[in-house]
Amino acid sequence: MTQKACKLVIVTEKLLLKKIGKIIDEAGATGYTVVAAGGKGSRGVRSSGQPIVGDTFSNVKFEVLTPSRDMAVKISDDVATKFFDDYSGIAYICDVMEVLHAHRF
Amino acid sequence: MTQKACKLVIVTEKLLLKKIGKIIDEAGATGYTVVAAGGKGSRGVRSSGQPIVGDTFSNVKFEVLTPSRDMAVKISDDVATKFFDDYSGIAYICDVMEVLHAHRF
Amino acid sequence: MTQKACKLVIVTEKLLLKKIGKIIDEAGATGYTVVAAGGKGSRGVRSSGQPIVGDTFSNVKFEVLTPSRDMAVKISDDVATKFFDDYSGIAYICDVMEVLHAHRF
Repeated sequence: MTQKACKLVIVTEKLLLKKIGKIIDEAGATGYTVVAAGGKGSRGVRSSGQPIVGDTFSNVKFEVLTPSRDMAVKISDDVATKFFDDYSGIAYICDVMEVLHAHRF
Repeated sequence: MTQKACKLVIVTEKLLLKKIGKIIDEAGATGYTVVAAGGKGSRGVRSSGQPIVGDTFSNVKFEVLTPSRDMAVKISDDVATKFFDDYSGIAYICDVMEVLHAHRF
Repeated sequence: MTQKACKLVIVTEKLLLKKIGKIIDEAGATGYTVVAAGGKGSRGVRSSGQPIVGDTFSNVKFEVLTPSRDMAVKISDDVATKFFDDYSGIAYICDVMEVLHAHRF
């Protein structure tokens, strides 16, 4: 099985884990991967001069393979509209060349 | 040093860590990166209506830079043939623009 | 907000976490993501026949979105010059199709 796909990457705060998982589900994506992440974003630096998010891995990074750019943008828009005024976050799309093997995609 | 490369990404169950590492080695790749991952895939949802893999990071995500698409496909085929009938998993290829620095690649 | 960007990926030893974060900051990047990683590289294999870095997640993987390839190369060159003679590491660039949402990028 070989298909082109988009990879949507969302990095945001860990407490949003379940809510964002639900948005991804409801958009019709068949799955996603989550890893614990740390880092530093512009929000952390600007608010206090100190990074809010240090070496503590209090962020999460979602990766969602979507069959179309449209689905990736829809998920990203939903997440940003609901959460990115109040929480740190970034969302971007990468090209996936080929999905080689998956149970269902 | 600047080279084009493929990045093979494999997300699957943690108990396959060593076996997949061995397959990657034997294919001639010079290294790989592994991160602990959670997530939800179609297998988890379909079998019981509940995700098998929740927030528990019981998956692993491999990333392997390979000098050719052929090596990436070979590794992916070996892994899928041996394990993806019985275990959750997905494998896909991304383009790497340039490998800038590495001890050996 | 939609912009093209580069993603610089650096995988290296965990003890360099703060020093590399500082290099990224000083290059003018607005943020980065870090995840704990394990894996195996050519250095580990060659030195003793045994991987130095096993399943212990003693590596870190940085991901930095940069507005230009130049900034990504500058960070990579700085990191490699300072550390890659003495520490394991790899640096590569991937294309990011679109940055969809971010507080500031």
